Amino acid sequence: MRYEEFTIEGRNAVLEAFRSGKTIDRLFVLDGCQDGPVKTILREAKKQNTLVQFVNKERLDHMSETGKHQGVVAYAAAYSYAEVSDILDAARAKGEAPFIFLLDEIEDPHNLGAIIRTANLAGAHGVIIPKRRAAGLTAVVVRTSAGALNYTPVAKVTNLANTIEDLKKEGLWFVCADMGGQTMYDLNLTGPIGLVIGNEGQGVSRLVREKCDMIASIPMKGDIDSLNASVAAGVLAYEIVRQRLKG
Amino acid sequence: MRYEEFTIEGRNAVLEAFRSGKTIDRLFVLDGCQDGPVKTILREAKKQNTLVQFVNKERLDHMSETGKHQGVVAYAAAYSYAEVSDILDAARAKGEAPFIFLLDEIEDPHNLGAIIRTANLAGAHGVIIPKRRAAGLTAVVVRTSAGALNYTPVAKVTNLANTIEDLKKEGLWFVCADMGGQTMYDLNLTGPIGLVIGNEGQGVSRLVREKCDMIASIPMKGDIDSLNASVAAGVLAYEIVRQRLKG
Repeated sequence: MRYEEFTIEGRNAVLEAFRSGKTIDRLFVLDGCQDGPVKTILREAKKQNTLVQFVNKERLDHMSETGKHQGVVAYAAAYSYAEVSDILDAARAKGEAPFIFLLDEIEDPHNLGAIIRTANLAGAHGVIIPKRRAAGLTAVVVRTSAGALNYTPVAKVTNLANTIEDLKKEGLWFVCADMGGQTMYDLNLTGPIGLVIGNEGQGVSRLVREKCDMIASIPMKGDIDSLNASVAAGVLAYEIVRQRLKG
Repeated sequence: MRYEEFTIEGRNAVLEAFRSGKTIDRLFVLDGCQDGPVKTILREAKKQNTLVQFVNKERLDHMSETGKHQGVVAYAAAYSYAEVSDILDAARAKGEAPFIFLLDEIEDPHNLGAIIRTANLAGAHGVIIPKRRAAGLTAVVVRTSAGALNYTPVAKVTNLANTIEDLKKEGLWFVCADMGGQTMYDLNLTGPIGLVIGNEGQGVSRLVREKCDMIASIPMKGDIDSLNASVAAGVLAYEIVRQRLKG
Protein backbone atom coordinates (compact mmCIF):
# COMPACT_ATOMS: atom_id res chain seq x y z
CA MET A 1 0.00 0.00 0.00
CA ARG A 2 1.40 3.37 -0.85
CA TYR A 3 0.16 6.88 -1.19
CA GLU A 4 1.17 9.94 -3.09
CA GLU A 5 -0.79 13.13 -3.51
CA PHE A 6 -0.31 14.82 -6.82
CA THR A 7 -1.55 17.78 -8.77
CA ILE A 8 -3.32 17.42 -12.09
CA GLU A 9 -3.52 20.57 -14.19
CA GLY A 10 -5.25 21.60 -17.37
CA ARG A 11 -8.69 20.79 -18.70
CA ASN A 12 -8.00 17.58 -20.57
CA ALA A 13 -5.81 16.08 -17.88
CA VAL A 14 -8.35 16.82 -15.14
CA LEU A 15 -11.30 15.52 -17.16
CA GLU A 16 -9.34 12.38 -18.05
CA ALA A 17 -8.50 11.83 -14.38
CA PHE A 18 -12.18 11.97 -13.43
CA ARG A 19 -13.21 9.63 -16.26
CA SER A 20 -10.52 7.06 -15.45
CA GLY A 21 -11.95 6.76 -11.94
CA LYS A 22 -9.03 8.34 -10.08
CA THR A 23 -9.77 9.59 -6.58
CA ILE A 24 -9.83 13.36 -6.86
CA ASP A 25 -9.74 14.89 -3.40
CA ARG A 26 -10.31 18.50 -4.40
CA LEU A 27 -10.94 20.49 -7.52
CA PHE A 28 -10.02 24.16 -7.88
CA VAL A 29 -11.68 26.16 -10.63
CA LEU A 30 -11.02 29.74 -11.72
CA ASP A 31 -13.82 31.89 -10.37
CA GLY A 32 -16.17 32.99 -13.15
CA CYS A 33 -15.02 30.32 -15.58
CA GLN A 34 -18.21 28.96 -17.14
CA ASP A 35 -17.38 27.64 -20.62
CA GLY A 36 -18.26 24.18 -21.98
CA PRO A 37 -15.18 22.15 -20.96
CA VAL A 38 -15.23 23.59 -17.42
CA LYS A 39 -18.92 22.79 -17.11
CA THR A 40 -18.19 19.19 -18.15
CA ILE A 41 -15.49 18.94 -15.48
CA LEU A 42 -17.85 20.35 -12.86
CA ARG A 43 -20.46 17.75 -13.81
CA GLU A 44 -17.92 14.94 -13.33
CA ALA A 45 -16.86 16.45 -10.01
CA LYS A 46 -20.46 16.49 -8.86
CA LYS A 47 -20.91 12.83 -9.82
CA GLN A 48 -17.89 11.89 -7.73
CA ASN A 49 -18.81 14.11 -4.79
CA THR A 50 -15.53 15.96 -5.15
CA LEU A 51 -15.07 19.10 -3.10
CA VAL A 52 -15.00 22.04 -5.52
CA GLN A 53 -13.56 25.44 -4.72
CA PHE A 54 -13.74 28.52 -6.89
CA VAL A 55 -10.58 30.56 -6.49
CA ASN A 56 -8.90 33.56 -8.05
CA LYS A 57 -6.16 33.39 -10.68
CA GLU A 58 -3.42 34.27 -8.20
CA ARG A 59 -4.24 31.24 -6.06
CA LEU A 60 -4.41 28.89 -9.06
CA ASP A 61 -1.07 30.17 -10.37
CA HIS A 62 0.40 29.50 -6.96
CA MET A 63 -0.91 25.92 -6.88
CA SER A 64 0.13 25.17 -10.41
CA GLU A 65 3.39 23.31 -10.90
CA THR A 66 3.51 23.67 -14.67
CA GLY A 67 2.04 27.16 -14.97
CA LYS A 68 -0.46 25.78 -17.51
CA HIS A 69 -3.55 25.12 -15.46
CA GLN A 70 -6.11 26.56 -17.93
CA GLY A 71 -8.34 27.48 -14.98
CA VAL A 72 -8.50 24.04 -13.35
CA VAL A 73 -6.27 22.27 -10.84
CA ALA A 74 -7.14 18.97 -9.17
CA TYR A 75 -5.57 17.25 -6.19
CA ALA A 76 -5.59 13.51 -6.72
CA ALA A 77 -4.76 10.64 -4.43
CA ALA A 78 -2.62 7.80 -5.71
CA TYR A 79 -3.47 5.77 -2.66
CA SER A 80 -4.91 2.36 -3.46
CA TYR A 81 -7.71 1.12 -1.26
CA ALA A 82 -7.73 -2.47 -0.07
CA GLU A 83 -10.60 -4.95 -0.23
CA VAL A 84 -12.29 -6.22 2.90
CA SER A 85 -10.98 -9.68 2.01
CA ASP A 86 -7.40 -8.32 2.15
CA ILE A 87 -8.01 -7.36 5.77
CA LEU A 88 -9.27 -10.84 6.67
CA ASP A 89 -6.28 -12.33 4.83
CA ALA A 90 -3.93 -10.15 6.89
CA ALA A 91 -5.41 -11.52 10.11
CA ARG A 92 -5.18 -15.08 8.79
CA ALA A 93 -1.56 -14.60 7.76
CA LYS A 94 -0.71 -13.54 11.30
CA GLY A 95 -2.71 -16.39 12.80
CA GLU A 96 -4.78 -13.91 14.79
CA ALA A 97 -8.50 -13.45 15.34
CA PRO A 98 -9.57 -10.56 13.06
CA PHE A 99 -9.69 -7.12 14.68
CA ILE A 100 -11.15 -4.49 12.36
CA PHE A 101 -12.07 -0.82 12.80
CA LEU A 102 -15.25 0.35 11.04
CA LEU A 103 -15.69 4.10 10.82
CA ASP A 104 -19.24 5.27 10.42
CA GLU A 105 -18.87 8.61 8.60
CA ILE A 106 -15.86 10.12 10.31
CA GLU A 107 -15.68 13.58 8.71
CA ASP A 108 -12.58 15.21 10.12
CA PRO A 109 -9.42 14.11 8.28
CA HIS A 110 -7.35 14.69 11.45
CA ASN A 111 -9.56 12.20 13.27
CA LEU A 112 -9.40 9.72 10.41
CA GLY A 113 -5.59 9.89 10.33
CA ALA A 114 -5.29 9.54 14.09
CA ILE A 115 -7.67 6.56 14.09
CA ILE A 116 -5.73 4.73 11.35
CA ARG A 117 -2.60 5.39 13.43
CA THR A 118 -4.32 3.90 16.49
CA ALA A 119 -5.58 0.91 14.48
CA ASN A 120 -2.02 0.13 13.45
CA LEU A 121 -0.61 0.35 16.98
CA ALA A 122 -3.47 -1.53 18.61
CA GLY A 123 -2.73 -4.40 16.24
CA ALA A 124 -5.91 -4.13 14.17
CA HIS A 125 -5.76 -5.78 10.76
CA GLY A 126 -7.49 -3.03 8.85
CA VAL A 127 -9.92 -0.12 8.71
CA ILE A 128 -13.20 0.03 6.78
CA ILE A 129 -14.74 3.36 5.77
CA PRO A 130 -17.90 4.11 3.79
CA LYS A 131 -17.76 5.56 0.28
CA ARG A 132 -20.12 8.44 1.03
CA ARG A 133 -20.34 11.18 3.62
CA ALA A 134 -16.91 10.50 5.07
CA ALA A 135 -13.39 11.84 4.81
CA GLY A 136 -11.33 10.00 2.20
CA LEU A 137 -7.61 9.39 2.25
CA THR A 138 -6.51 12.95 1.64
CA ALA A 139 -3.09 14.47 2.22
CA VAL A 140 -4.07 15.51 5.76
CA VAL A 141 -5.09 11.95 6.59
CA VAL A 142 -1.83 10.63 5.23
CA ARG A 143 0.13 13.10 7.34
CA THR A 144 -1.81 12.56 10.57
CA SER A 145 -1.67 8.78 10.18
CA ALA A 146 2.09 9.16 10.77
CA GLY A 147 2.97 6.42 8.31
CA ALA A 148 0.31 3.93 9.43
CA LEU A 149 -1.29 4.05 5.96
CA ASN A 150 1.74 2.25 4.61
CA TYR A 151 0.96 -0.77 6.77
CA THR A 152 -2.69 -0.79 7.73
CA PRO A 153 -5.06 -1.57 4.85
CA VAL A 154 -8.08 0.69 4.42
CA ALA A 155 -11.11 -0.57 2.51
CA LYS A 156 -13.95 1.58 1.22
CA VAL A 157 -17.40 0.03 1.11
CA THR A 158 -20.76 1.17 -0.27
CA ASN A 159 -22.84 0.15 2.71
CA LEU A 160 -21.38 -0.34 6.15
CA ALA A 161 -24.41 -2.23 7.50
CA ASN A 162 -24.17 -4.79 4.68
CA THR A 163 -20.45 -5.21 5.28
CA ILE A 164 -21.15 -5.91 8.93
CA GLU A 165 -23.65 -8.61 7.89
CA ASP A 166 -21.05 -10.18 5.59
CA LEU A 167 -18.38 -10.12 8.27
CA LYS A 168 -20.70 -11.73 10.81
CA LYS A 169 -20.71 -14.76 8.50
CA GLU A 170 -16.94 -14.80 8.95
CA GLY A 171 -17.43 -15.09 12.67
CA LEU A 172 -16.88 -11.49 13.74
CA TRP A 173 -18.70 -9.82 16.61
CA PHE A 174 -19.42 -6.10 16.49
CA VAL A 175 -19.18 -3.52 19.22
CA CYS A 176 -19.97 0.15 18.86
CA ALA A 177 -19.39 3.02 21.19
CA ASP A 178 -22.54 4.81 22.17
CA MET A 179 -24.42 6.29 25.07
CA GLY A 180 -26.61 3.96 27.04
CA GLY A 181 -24.52 0.86 26.46
CA GLN A 182 -22.79 -1.38 28.95
CA THR A 183 -19.56 -0.16 30.55
CA MET A 184 -16.79 -1.42 28.28
CA TYR A 185 -14.94 -3.08 31.16
CA ASP A 186 -17.92 -5.41 31.69
CA LEU A 187 -18.12 -6.62 28.08
CA ASN A 188 -16.27 -9.58 26.61
CA LEU A 189 -14.30 -8.00 23.80
CA THR A 190 -12.05 -10.93 22.96
CA GLY A 191 -12.27 -13.06 19.81
CA PRO A 192 -12.83 -11.86 16.22
CA ILE A 193 -14.13 -8.33 16.59
CA GLY A 194 -15.23 -5.27 14.65
CA LEU A 195 -15.01 -1.95 16.49
CA VAL A 196 -17.50 0.60 15.14
CA ILE A 197 -16.75 4.30 15.67
CA GLY A 198 -19.50 6.81 14.96
CA ASN A 199 -19.57 10.23 13.38
CA GLU A 200 -18.15 13.18 15.36
CA GLY A 201 -21.52 14.86 15.79
CA GLN A 202 -24.24 12.26 15.42
CA GLY A 203 -22.49 9.15 16.71
CA VAL A 204 -23.26 5.76 15.19
CA SER A 205 -26.12 5.80 12.67
CA ARG A 206 -29.25 3.85 13.56
CA LEU A 207 -28.91 1.19 10.85
CA VAL A 208 -25.33 0.42 11.80
CA ARG A 209 -26.08 0.50 15.52
CA GLU A 210 -28.82 -2.11 15.06
CA LYS A 211 -26.32 -4.47 13.44
CA CYS A 212 -23.98 -4.32 16.44
CA ASP A 213 -23.92 -7.18 18.95
CA MET A 214 -22.73 -5.00 21.81
CA ILE A 215 -22.94 -1.35 22.70
CA ALA A 216 -20.03 -0.21 24.81
CA SER A 217 -19.99 2.87 26.97
CA ILE A 218 -16.84 4.64 28.04
CA PRO A 219 -17.34 5.84 31.63
CA MET A 220 -17.97 9.58 31.54
CA LYS A 221 -17.23 11.33 34.80
CA GLY A 222 -17.20 14.91 33.57
CA ASP A 223 -19.50 17.72 32.63
CA ILE A 224 -19.48 17.59 28.84
CA ASP A 225 -20.97 15.12 26.40
CA SER A 226 -18.37 13.06 24.64
CA LEU A 227 -14.75 12.42 23.90
CA ASN A 228 -13.13 13.41 20.63
CA ALA A 229 -13.85 10.60 18.12
CA SER A 230 -10.21 9.58 17.74
CA VAL A 231 -9.69 9.56 21.51
CA ALA A 232 -12.82 7.43 22.00
CA ALA A 233 -11.57 5.03 19.33
CA GLY A 234 -8.23 4.79 21.13
CA VAL A 235 -9.75 4.18 24.55
CA LEU A 236 -12.03 1.42 23.22
CA ALA A 237 -9.34 -0.16 21.06
CA TYR A 238 -7.04 -0.41 24.05
CA GLU A 239 -9.72 -2.00 26.18
CA ILE A 240 -9.84 -4.67 23.43
CA VAL A 241 -6.03 -4.89 23.54
CA ARG A 242 -6.09 -5.28 27.31
CA GLN A 243 -8.67 -8.07 27.21
CA ARG A 244 -6.80 -9.83 24.40
CA LEU A 245 -3.49 -9.67 26.31
CA LYS A 246 -5.15 -11.06 29.42
CA GLY A 247 -6.97 -13.82 27.56
CA MET B 1 -13.80 29.94 34.29
CA ARG B 2 -14.76 31.48 31.02
CA TYR B 3 -13.16 32.25 27.73
CA GLU B 4 -13.69 34.74 24.99
CA GLU B 5 -11.42 35.47 22.08
CA PHE B 6 -11.44 39.04 20.94
CA THR B 7 -9.78 41.34 18.50
CA ILE B 8 -7.79 44.37 19.58
CA GLU B 9 -7.12 46.92 16.89
CA GLY B 10 -5.06 50.05 16.52
CA ARG B 11 -1.60 50.89 17.81
CA ASN B 12 -2.43 52.27 21.25
CA ALA B 13 -4.96 49.58 22.07
CA VAL B 14 -2.60 46.78 21.08
CA LEU B 15 0.38 48.27 22.93
CA GLU B 16 -1.79 48.80 26.01
CA ALA B 17 -2.96 45.19 25.85
CA PHE B 18 0.61 43.93 25.82
CA ARG B 19 1.65 46.21 28.68
CA SER B 20 -1.31 45.24 30.86
CA GLY B 21 -0.20 41.62 30.66
CA LYS B 22 -3.11 40.33 28.56
CA THR B 23 -2.56 37.03 26.80
CA ILE B 24 -2.14 37.92 23.14
CA ASP B 25 -2.36 34.79 21.01
CA ARG B 26 -1.37 36.34 17.72
CA LEU B 27 -0.29 39.67 16.36
CA PHE B 28 -0.85 40.73 12.74
CA VAL B 29 1.19 43.60 11.38
CA LEU B 30 0.96 45.31 8.01
CA ASP B 31 3.83 44.09 5.88
CA GLY B 32 6.47 46.79 5.43
CA CYS B 33 5.29 48.84 8.41
CA GLN B 34 8.44 49.83 10.25
CA ASP B 35 7.79 53.08 12.11
CA GLY B 36 8.45 53.78 15.78
CA PRO B 37 5.13 52.71 17.39
CA VAL B 38 5.02 49.48 15.36
CA LYS B 39 8.60 48.67 16.38
CA THR B 40 7.63 49.18 20.03
CA ILE B 41 4.72 46.78 19.62
CA LEU B 42 6.96 44.21 17.95
CA ARG B 43 9.39 44.46 20.88
CA GLU B 44 6.57 43.78 23.34
CA ALA B 45 5.40 40.84 21.20
CA LYS B 46 8.89 39.39 21.24
CA LYS B 47 9.08 39.69 25.05
CA GLN B 48 5.82 37.76 25.36
CA ASN B 49 6.72 35.15 22.74
CA THR B 50 3.64 36.13 20.74
CA LEU B 51 3.31 34.68 17.26
CA VAL B 52 3.71 37.57 14.79
CA GLN B 53 2.52 37.49 11.20
CA PHE B 54 3.16 40.12 8.57
CA VAL B 55 0.16 40.36 6.27
CA ASN B 56 -1.11 42.56 3.46
CA LYS B 57 -3.63 45.37 3.87
CA GLU B 58 -6.48 43.33 2.37
CA ARG B 59 -6.11 40.66 5.05
CA LEU B 60 -5.90 43.22 7.87
CA ASP B 61 -8.99 45.02 6.59
CA HIS B 62 -10.79 41.71 6.53
CA MET B 63 -9.82 40.90 10.13
CA SER B 64 -10.64 44.33 11.42
CA GLU B 65 -14.00 44.83 13.06
CA THR B 66 -13.78 48.61 13.38
CA GLY B 67 -11.97 49.34 10.11
CA LYS B 68 -9.41 51.35 12.10
CA HIS B 69 -6.56 48.93 12.63
CA GLN B 70 -3.69 51.35 11.83
CA GLY B 71 -1.65 48.40 10.59
CA VAL B 72 -1.93 46.22 13.72
CA VAL B 73 -4.50 43.67 14.83
CA ALA B 74 -4.09 41.38 17.84
CA TYR B 75 -6.06 38.33 18.88
CA ALA B 76 -6.33 38.21 22.65
CA ALA B 77 -7.62 35.58 25.02
CA ALA B 78 -9.92 36.56 27.83
CA TYR B 79 -9.56 33.15 29.38
CA SER B 80 -8.44 33.20 32.96
CA TYR B 81 -5.97 30.58 34.07
CA ALA B 82 -6.39 28.81 37.37
CA GLU B 83 -3.78 28.27 40.07
CA VAL B 84 -2.46 24.80 40.90
CA SER B 85 -4.02 25.22 44.34
CA ASP B 86 -7.45 25.65 42.70
CA ILE B 87 -7.05 22.20 41.15
CA LEU B 88 -6.20 20.61 44.51
CA ASP B 89 -9.16 22.43 46.05
CA ALA B 90 -11.45 21.01 43.35
CA ALA B 91 -10.36 17.46 44.24
CA ARG B 92 -10.84 18.17 47.94
CA ALA B 93 -14.30 19.61 47.37
CA LYS B 94 -15.32 16.39 45.63
CA GLY B 95 -13.73 14.23 48.31
CA GLU B 96 -11.58 12.52 45.69
CA ALA B 97 -7.88 11.72 45.45
CA PRO B 98 -6.37 14.35 43.12
CA PHE B 99 -6.06 13.35 39.46
CA ILE B 100 -4.17 15.94 37.42
CA PHE B 101 -2.94 16.05 33.81
CA LEU B 102 0.47 17.67 33.26
CA LEU B 103 1.27 18.50 29.64
CA ASP B 104 4.96 18.74 28.85
CA GLU B 105 5.05 21.13 25.88
CA ILE B 106 2.05 20.00 23.83
CA GLU B 107 2.34 22.18 20.72
CA ASP B 108 -0.69 21.36 18.61
CA PRO B 109 -3.79 23.28 19.76
CA HIS B 110 -6.05 20.46 18.47
CA ASN B 111 -4.24 18.04 20.76
CA LEU B 112 -4.40 20.46 23.69
CA GLY B 113 -8.15 20.92 23.22
CA ALA B 114 -8.78 17.19 22.88
CA ILE B 115 -6.70 16.47 26.01
CA ILE B 116 -8.58 19.03 28.11
CA ARG B 117 -11.81 17.39 26.86
CA THR B 118 -10.47 13.98 27.90
CA ALA B 119 -9.34 15.31 31.28
CA ASN B 120 -12.86 16.53 31.95
CA LEU B 121 -14.52 13.24 30.99
CA ALA B 122 -11.99 11.05 32.78
CA GLY B 123 -12.81 12.95 35.94
CA ALA B 124 -9.47 14.71 36.32
CA HIS B 125 -9.51 17.78 38.53
CA GLY B 126 -7.38 19.98 36.31
CA VAL B 127 -4.69 20.39 33.70
CA ILE B 128 -1.27 21.99 34.15
CA ILE B 129 0.65 23.40 31.20
CA PRO B 130 4.02 25.16 31.06
CA LYS B 131 4.32 28.88 30.26
CA ARG B 132 6.84 28.40 27.47
CA ARG B 133 7.13 26.31 24.33
CA ALA B 134 3.56 25.10 24.47
CA ALA B 135 0.22 25.91 22.93
CA GLY B 136 -1.80 28.36 25.02
CA LEU B 137 -5.55 28.57 25.31
CA THR B 138 -6.26 29.87 21.83
CA ALA B 139 -9.56 29.87 19.96
CA VAL B 140 -8.74 26.48 18.39
CA VAL B 141 -8.15 24.98 21.82
CA VAL B 142 -11.41 26.39 23.11
CA ARG B 143 -13.29 24.93 20.15
CA THR B 144 -11.66 21.47 20.25
CA SER B 145 -12.12 21.25 24.02
CA ALA B 146 -15.87 21.10 23.25
CA GLY B 147 -16.80 23.13 26.30
CA ALA B 148 -14.49 21.35 28.74
CA LEU B 149 -12.62 24.62 29.37
CA ASN B 150 -15.69 25.93 31.13
CA TYR B 151 -15.37 23.22 33.76
CA THR B 152 -11.84 21.91 33.93
CA PRO B 153 -9.34 24.39 35.41
CA VAL B 154 -6.10 24.90 33.50
CA ALA B 155 -3.05 26.27 35.33
CA LYS B 156 0.06 27.63 33.68
CA VAL B 157 3.37 27.16 35.50
CA THR B 158 6.90 28.38 34.90
CA ASN B 159 8.64 25.09 35.54
CA LEU B 160 6.87 21.77 35.30
CA ALA B 161 9.59 19.83 37.14
CA ASN B 162 9.34 22.18 40.14
CA THR B 163 5.56 21.88 40.12
CA ILE B 164 5.88 18.10 40.24
CA GLU B 165 8.19 18.43 43.26
CA ASP B 166 5.65 20.65 45.01
CA LEU B 167 2.79 18.29 44.26
CA LYS B 168 4.74 15.32 45.57
CA LYS B 169 4.65 17.05 48.94
CA GLU B 170 0.85 16.97 48.61
CA GLY B 171 1.01 13.18 48.26
CA LEU B 172 0.73 12.82 44.49
CA TRP B 173 2.49 10.13 42.48
CA PHE B 174 3.55 10.82 38.93
CA VAL B 175 3.34 8.61 35.90
CA CYS B 176 4.51 9.51 32.44
CA ALA B 177 4.00 7.77 29.13
CA ASP B 178 7.24 6.82 27.46
CA MET B 179 9.00 4.05 25.64
CA GLY B 180 10.81 1.50 27.73
CA GLY B 181 8.50 1.75 30.71
CA GLN B 182 6.36 -0.90 32.32
CA THR B 183 3.15 -1.98 30.59
CA MET B 184 0.46 0.30 32.00
CA TYR B 185 -1.77 -2.63 32.97
CA ASP B 186 0.93 -3.83 35.40
CA LEU B 187 1.29 -0.52 37.25
CA ASN B 188 -0.70 0.58 40.26
CA LEU B 189 -2.29 3.81 39.06
CA THR B 190 -4.73 4.34 41.91
CA GLY B 191 -4.46 7.04 44.56
CA PRO B 192 -3.51 10.71 44.10
CA ILE B 193 -1.90 10.85 40.68
CA GLY B 194 -0.37 13.17 38.10
CA LEU B 195 -0.42 11.94 34.51
CA VAL B 196 2.40 13.48 32.46
CA ILE B 197 1.97 13.66 28.67
CA GLY B 198 4.99 14.52 26.55
CA ASN B 199 5.50 16.64 23.48
CA GLU B 200 4.22 15.34 20.12
CA GLY B 201 7.69 14.86 18.67
CA GLN B 202 10.16 14.54 21.51
CA GLY B 203 8.04 12.92 24.18
CA VAL B 204 8.60 13.77 27.83
CA SER B 205 11.64 15.97 28.48
CA ARG B 206 14.49 14.44 30.48
CA LEU B 207 14.12 16.70 33.53
CA VAL B 208 10.41 15.98 33.84
CA ARG B 209 10.86 12.26 33.16
CA GLU B 210 13.38 12.03 36.02
CA LYS B 211 10.81 13.43 38.43
CA CYS B 212 8.25 10.75 37.57
CA ASP B 213 7.72 7.80 39.90
CA MET B 214 6.52 5.47 37.16
CA ILE B 215 7.01 5.21 33.44
CA ALA B 216 4.06 3.60 31.71
CA SER B 217 4.15 2.02 28.29
CA ILE B 218 1.11 1.57 26.12
CA PRO B 219 1.41 -1.80 24.34
CA MET B 220 2.43 -1.14 20.73
CA LYS B 221 1.59 -3.97 18.40
CA GLY B 222 1.98 -2.17 15.08
CA ASP B 223 4.62 -0.97 12.68
CA ILE B 224 4.89 2.72 13.49
CA ASP B 225 6.34 4.56 16.47
CA SER B 226 3.70 6.16 18.59
CA LEU B 227 0.10 7.16 19.07
CA ASN B 228 -1.14 10.69 18.55
CA ALA B 229 -0.50 12.61 21.80
CA SER B 230 -4.18 13.16 22.58
CA VAL B 231 -5.01 9.50 21.89
CA ALA B 232 -2.14 8.35 24.14
CA ALA B 233 -3.39 10.69 26.86
CA GLY B 234 -6.88 9.19 26.51
CA VAL B 235 -5.69 5.60 26.63
CA LEU B 236 -3.58 6.20 29.75
CA ALA B 237 -6.22 8.32 31.46
CA TYR B 238 -8.78 5.57 31.00
CA GLU B 239 -6.43 2.94 32.40
CA ILE B 240 -6.35 5.16 35.49
CA VAL B 241 -10.16 5.39 35.40
CA ARG B 242 -10.44 1.59 35.12
CA GLN B 243 -8.15 1.00 38.07
CA ARG B 244 -9.95 3.63 40.15
CA LEU B 245 -13.36 2.11 39.39
CA LYS B 246 -12.11 -1.34 40.30
CA GLY B 247 -10.43 -0.19 43.52
